[in-house]
Amino acid sequence: MGGNSFGTNFRITTFGESHGAALGVIIDGVPAGLPIDMDFVQYELARRRPGQSALTTARQEGDAPEIVSGVLNGVATGTPLTIIIRNTDQRSRDYSKLEHTFRPGHADYGYNAKYGIRDVRGGGRSSGRETAARVAAGAVAKLFLKTLGIDICAYALQIGTVKAEKFIPSEIEENAARCPDPDAAEEMIAEVAAAAERKDSVGGKVGCRIYGVPAGWGEPVFDKLDALLAHAMLSLGAVKGIEFGAGFDVCSMCASENNDPLRPGEPPFVTNHAGGILGGISNGDVIEFNIAVKPTPSISRVQQTVDDQGNACEIEITGRHDPCIVPRIVPVVEAMAALVLADTALRQRCVKLDDMCNE
Amino acid sequence: MGGNSFGTNFRITTFGESHGAALGVIIDGVPAGLPIDMDFVQYELARRRPGQSALTTARQEGDAPEIVSGVLNGVATGTPLTIIIRNTDQRSRDYSKLEHTFRPGHADYGYNAKYGIRDVRGGGRSSGRETAARVAAGAVAKLFLKTLGIDICAYALQIGTVKAEKFIPSEIEENAARCPDPDAAEEMIAEVAAAAERKDSVGGKVGCRIYGVPAGWGEPVFDKLDALLAHAMLSLGAVKGIEFGAGFDVCSMCASENNDPLRPGEPPFVTNHAGGILGGISNGDVIEFNIAVKPTPSISRVQQTVDDQGNACEIEITGRHDPCIVPRIVPVVEAMAALVLADTALRQRCVKLDDMCNE
Amino acid sequence: MGGNSFGTNFRITTFGESHGAALGVIIDGVPAGLPIDMDFVQYELARRRPGQSALTTARQEGDAPEIVSGVLNGVATGTPLTIIIRNTDQRSRDYSKLEHTFRPGHADYGYNAKYGIRDVRGGGRSSGRETAARVAAGAVAKLFLKTLGIDICAYALQIGTVKAEKFIPSEIEENAARCPDPDAAEEMIAEVAAAAERKDSVGGKVGCRIYGVPAGWGEPVFDKLDALLAHAMLSLGAVKGIEFGAGFDVCSMCASENNDPLRPGEPPFVTNHAGGILGGISNGDVIEFNIAVKPTPSISRVQQTVDDQGNACEIEITGRHDPCIVPRIVPVVEAMAALVLADTALRQRCVKLDDMCNE
Amino acid sequence: MGGNSFGTNFRITTFGESHGAALGVIIDGVPAGLPIDMDFVQYELARRRPGQSALTTARQEGDAPEIVSGVLNGVATGTPLTIIIRNTDQRSRDYSKLEHTFRPGHADYGYNAKYGIRDVRGGGRSSGRETAARVAAGAVAKLFLKTLGIDICAYALQIGTVKAEKFIPSEIEENAARCPDPDAAEEMIAEVAAAAERKDSVGGKVGCRIYGVPAGWGEPVFDKLDALLAHAMLSLGAVKGIEFGAGFDVCSMCASENNDPLRPGEPPFVTNHAGGILGGISNGDVIEFNIAVKPTPSISRVQQTVDDQGNACEIEITGRHDPCIVPRIVPVVEAMAALVLADTALRQRCVKLDDMCNE
Repeated sequence: MGGNSFGTNFRITTFGESHGAALGVIIDGVPAGLPIDMDFVQYELARRRPGQSALTTARQEGDAPEIVSGVLNGVATGTPLTIIIRNTDQRSRDYSKLEHTFRPGHADYGYNAKYGIRDVRGGGRSSGRETAARVAAGAVAKLFLKTLGIDICAYALQIGTVKAEKFIPSEIEENAARCPDPDAAEEMIAEVAAAAERKDSVGGKVGCRIYGVPAGWGEPVFDKLDALLAHAMLSLGAVKGIEFGAGFDVCSMCASENNDPLRPGEPPFVTNHAGGILGGISNGDVIEFNIAVKPTPSISRVQQTVDDQGNACEIEITGRHDPCIVPRIVPVVEAMAALVLADTALRQRCVKLDDMCNE
Repeated sequence: MGGNSFGTNFRITTFGESHGAALGVIIDGVPAGLPIDMDFVQYELARRRPGQSALTTARQEGDAPEIVSGVLNGVATGTPLTIIIRNTDQRSRDYSKLEHTFRPGHADYGYNAKYGIRDVRGGGRSSGRETAARVAAGAVAKLFLKTLGIDICAYALQIGTVKAEKFIPSEIEENAARCPDPDAAEEMIAEVAAAAERKDSVGGKVGCRIYGVPAGWGEPVFDKLDALLAHAMLSLGAVKGIEFGAGFDVCSMCASENNDPLRPGEPPFVTNHAGGILGGISNGDVIEFNIAVKPTPSISRVQQTVDDQGNACEIEITGRHDPCIVPRIVPVVEAMAALVLADTALRQRCVKLDDMCNE
Repeated sequence: MGGNSFGTNFRITTFGESHGAALGVIIDGVPAGLPIDMDFVQYELARRRPGQSALTTARQEGDAPEIVSGVLNGVATGTPLTIIIRNTDQRSRDYSKLEHTFRPGHADYGYNAKYGIRDVRGGGRSSGRETAARVAAGAVAKLFLKTLGIDICAYALQIGTVKAEKFIPSEIEENAARCPDPDAAEEMIAEVAAAAERKDSVGGKVGCRIYGVPAGWGEPVFDKLDALLAHAMLSLGAVKGIEFGAGFDVCSMCASENNDPLRPGEPPFVTNHAGGILGGISNGDVIEFNIAVKPTPSISRVQQTVDDQGNACEIEITGRHDPCIVPRIVPVVEAMAALVLADTALRQRCVKLDDMCNE
Repeated sequence: MGGNSFGTNFRITTFGESHGAALGVIIDGVPAGLPIDMDFVQYELARRRPGQSALTTARQEGDAPEIVSGVLNGVATGTPLTIIIRNTDQRSRDYSKLEHTFRPGHADYGYNAKYGIRDVRGGGRSSGRETAARVAAGAVAKLFLKTLGIDICAYALQIGTVKAEKFIPSEIEENAARCPDPDAAEEMIAEVAAAAERKDSVGGKVGCRIYGVPAGWGEPVFDKLDALLAHAMLSLGAVKGIEFGAGFDVCSMCASENNDPLRPGEPPFVTNHAGGILGGISNGDVIEFNIAVKPTPSISRVQQTVDDQGNACEIEITGRHDPCIVPRIVPVVEAMAALVLADTALRQRCVKLDDMCNE
C-alpha cells in the first residue's frame, strides 16, 4: 500500500500527478445527509490556487472541481464522494534537462531510488499540486465540522525574518501574506519580493487555531489527537516541524510554569500552554499549533547537483515557482486539520456506551 | 477502534494500565527466522526503567518481560510475538484524593470527558508506564533493523536551560542525563537536582539520529517517512513538538541556504538540512530530528485546580515522580523510531517489480 | 502484518500457540461503561472447551480467562480489554514423529513453505485452540450486543449423514450434538461414536440465526454484511463453505421464487430467502446462514503422507482428538458472528448526519 | 469508513454510482515497473459488458477505461493507478415510480434504513455496474500475477437446472454461457431464454480455478486465503454462498475420505478435496471454489411490495435486465480473485527473514 489514504472513519484517498490528466480524491465516510456546498469547495480551492498575488507562482490552474460520485441533489448520499480536478495548464515544456538530474531540496534522488522510475514532469506525485485534492476533501470535512460548531483558522506567523506581532483574525484574508498582523504583512511581502529578485525563496511559520472542539476527542495511545495532526502536517512536503501550545519553549520551562492551572469554567484552563491537548485528548480549550515551512526549493539561480550517473553538474530551474509557499499552504493546513478532526469526530461516536443507549 | 495499534506491515498493539495486572504488546509481522535476543529486550527495558539515578523516579519496576507467543527455540516463528510485563510494584496507595480532582498538565480532564470513566490509579492507560510495552516491541524492531545495518541513537540535547555543545556518542550512556556532552551533562544533572529541590520539574530536548537507512524509504504522500516519525513521537504524552534537519530554523532561511547541494558520492549531499528526508522519502543521509519534551506535570508543590463538580480546589501530588523525564524518554524515542523503520523496511519490499522478479 | 487482527471499530487481535505459555486476545473498541460479566465469558469458554462429552476430545483445558487490562470495577474503561488464557495442559508429549512429517488435512505443508519454521507442538498457531481467544472476545461482543437487543444462536444442522428435521431452540444446549432436533441428536451422537470406533471422524453443517439486527447495517460494497460474516466464518480452519438464506439452492431457482415479496409490517418480508441481507445490507429480518464443517483431519488410522525430504511414509496420529468438531464449533461460530455485528453496530453510528445532530 | 476499499498491500478503492457521471477505481500498491496493457484492461471490461448476447441486458455501456494517474509511458510508476469509466448510457428514464417503492430482491429497503437517502437511478451504488471498476482493477492485478506465473479461470458450472458435465477450458469463452461443457451450454442458453420469455430470471453456480499459486500463501488466522476469497466473493451482491474444494459435501464425509493423502511430488497431494488451501494457507495445488449466484431480482412480471409509507402495492420493473447474470459475473469473479492474490503475493514478501537477507 503506497500510503495514499489518510484517516479511519472519515478516510480520503488521493491520486494524480502534477502533469497527468487529472488529480482527485475519494472521500469514504461522509455522513449521509450532509449538504455539499460546491461553491465553498471552489472557494477553498481558489485560496490554494497559484497566481493569486506576486508572492505565488503565475501558473494558472483552473482547479474546477467536478463531483463524480456520492452527491445527489446537493446532499451527500453516504457513498464515496469523489472529486476530480482536471489538469488544464499542462504546457508541453521541455523537461529533458531535468530527466537525468536531481534537483536540490526535492525528492528526486529518493524517488529514483524508491521506484526506479521517475515522472519528471513537474515532480509527478511529489508535486505540491497534489494538495489541491486535499483542499477539496478538506472543504467537505469543514462542511461537516461546521454542523458540529468547529472552526479552523490558519495564518502566516512568520515569513523569512518578519514575524507577526498581532493577531487580528479579520486581517488574515485581507493581505497577500495571509498574516493576521497587517503591518507585518507589508514587510513580509517586501521580503518575499526581495528574495524573488535574488532568484531565491524564503520559508516561514504557519500557525493554526481550532475552535469548538469539545473535551474528550482523540485516542489515548498511538492515535493521540496531536499525533494525528502531526502526521497530517508532516505529510506536507514543505513542512519540517510542528509544535503544539508552548511548543519548543517547554524545553526550558519548569512544570510550575508550563502546567495550565484549572479554575471553575468551561473550559477550565487559566492558560493554554498545552495547546488544547493533554495526553493526546482534547481538553476543550483552543487547539493551537505552529508548523515550520521550508523555502520553496525550486529557485532559478545556479545550484550544484549530480546527474543520475553520479556526475557533478549544475542546474538552473526555470518555470513558474512560488518565492514563498506560506500563503498558499495556509488553506492546505486548514484542510488537513479538518480531515483529522472530521475523523476524530466520527471515532468519538463509538466510545461511550451511554451515548449509544440514550439515542 | 481505540488507536492502540501502530504500523502496517510491522504492527504493534499495546495494552495495559499503570496499576493493572500487567501491560504488554503484540507484534504482528516479525519476520520468521529472526533470532530474538531476550537479553537485549531486557537491556532496553532497563534503560527506560525508573530508579536508574537521582534524575528519575524511585519507583521500582522489575520490568521482566515474558514472551508468551511467537518464539520457538529463540527464533521468531512469524506468528504474533507477545510480550507481557507484570506490574509488580502496585502499592496500595490512597488515590481517593485524586479520584475527583483533575491534575494540571495531565490528561485527567479530557479522559473524564471522553470515557465518562477514569482509572485514577497512576493515570491508568495514560501513564508513561505504557511506554514499557513500546520499548519491548522496539527492541524486537531493532533486532530486525540490525540485520539490515540500521542503527538508531537518541540523546539529551537540552535539559532545562542547559544545552549540549558537543556530540560524543560514546558518552551518551555514560551519564545520568544521556547527554553526548559530558560537561553539559553535569550541569543538566545539577539543574534537575535544583528543580527537584524546588518541588518542580524541568523539560528538555531530545535528538535522534538514524544511520544506515538506504535512499528510497517512505511513501510519497500521507505516509511520508517524516510524517510517520512525527506521528510516532507525538504519540508520546510528554512530547510537544518535532523538527527534522534544520527544523524551525528553515522559517527564516532562503532556499539558497537551506537546499542541500549534491556532489558525487553516496549519499551525494554536501549538507543535511533536510535531516535525511526529502518529500517524505529517505535520501540515504543520516535521518535527524529533535523533539520537545515538556517538564513532568506531576510535581509536589501546591497547584490550583478544580474537582469534577467544577469547584476550585488545590492539589499536591505526592508519590514518586521524575523531576526530568528526558533521560528515560531517550530509549522510548529510539523504540518508536525503530518501529517506524521496521515497518517502512517491510513496506519497501512491495514497491518495485524488479525486486520481485529477480529473486 | 500477519493477519491476526479482525474488525475495524470493534477490533480484536489474538495471539498464542497451542502449546505455548498462553493465548489471548486484545479487544480494542469496547464501549466505555459496558459491564463485563466474567461469569458469562467463562460460560462461553466452557461451551467451547474439550471434554464436554464423548463427542469431543478428552483434553482438559481449564480455560480460565484472566482479564489483564481494560476493566475497572467490573466495567469496561474504553481502553484495550485484554484476556489471557494460560495453557495448563501441555503434556510433554513426544512430537518428534510429527516434526518431519506432514499430517494429511492439516496446514503443515503450507506452513512449512510459508515460514520455513514450524511449531509442531499441537499445530502451533494453526491449532483449533486459538479459537478460545475468539470465544472470549465474542463473549464481550455478545454483552455489547445484548444492550442493543441482538441475540445469536448457532446449532448443528447436520452431522455426518444425519440431518436435523426440527428447530426447537430450547433443545440445542440440551444434547451433546447441540442439535435443535432431539431425535436427530441421538442419531448424530451414534454416528459420531461409530466413526470414533473406526478411528475416523465425521463432518457436519452448522446453522446460525441472528435476531434483532435492525435494517440498514453493513456497508454496500466490499464490507457487505454477508462478506464480513463469510470472512469471519472461513477464518475458522475447519470451515469449507458458507451460504446465506436459500444458499446454494438459489442456483436452480427463478427470481419469481427467490425474491422475497414485501407486505406491510416490520420487517416487511413475506419470506426470507435472502437470509436477512440484501445487497450486503441487513433488511431487518432474521439473518441466517449455514457453514460446512469438515471432518477433523486428525485420525488415528494409518494415512499415507510424505516427510519434509519428500519421501513417502505413513502416519498414525495419536493423542486426543474430536471425532466430530461440530458441537464445539457452535460457540465459535456465535463468537465470530458477534464480533462482526459489534463492529457493524459501531460503524453504523458514523453513517447518518441526522443521528449525529439529534443527540 | 464506508467499506469502499479492499486489500492491504495491493489495495483498491472504488467509487461511482450507476447513473452518475462516472465510476472508477484507485489502485494503491501496483508494483513500479509493471507494464500496463490497456488493451487487456479493455478486453476484460468487454467480457463483463452487457449486450454481449441474448443472455445479457441490452444496455450499451461503452466502458472505455481512462487512465488518469499512475502510468507513464505504459508502465506503472508506483503511484496510485486510477481508472475512470464514464457512464455514457444514462437514459433519462422515469424513475419516479421506483422512488417510493422497494424492489423485491434488491437492497432498496436496507439502503433506505441505512442512509435515509436513496439514489433510485439504477440502484445507485448498489448497482452491479459498480463491478466494472473491479474488473478494471482486477485486470491490472492479473497483469501482475502473470509475471508470477499465476492464472485464474472462472466459468459457469450450472445455470438454472442445467449442470456442466465436462470441463474443457478452451470452450469457456466460446459460448454465451461461459460454460466449459459446450453441450450443457446450449441447454443453459435455452433455459435462460425460456425464463426471459416468462419475464423471469434464473440463477446458477460459478466455478473458479487458480493455477500457479505456490505453497505458503495466506495468513494463518483471520486472513486465511479462503477467508479473503470468501470476503471478496460475497462482496458481490448476487452471490449467496461459496464453497472450497469438496465444499458442502464435506458435511457427510469422513476424514478418511476427505483428507488428501500426500505422495512424493510437487504439489504432493493425491486428491484435492481441500481446494488447494489447508488451514488458510495455500498448499501448492490448484485453488478451487464455487459460488452460488442468485437469479437477477429485476424481473418485469408483477411483484408484491410496499412503498416507503408501508402501504402494500405492486411493482413491474421495466428496463433492460439480465435474465441470467452468470456469464457476466465470470470475469468479475476472476477479477476479485486476482485482487486477493495480488495482495497475498505482496504480503508474502514480508514473511521470511531469509528472503530479505538473500537479496
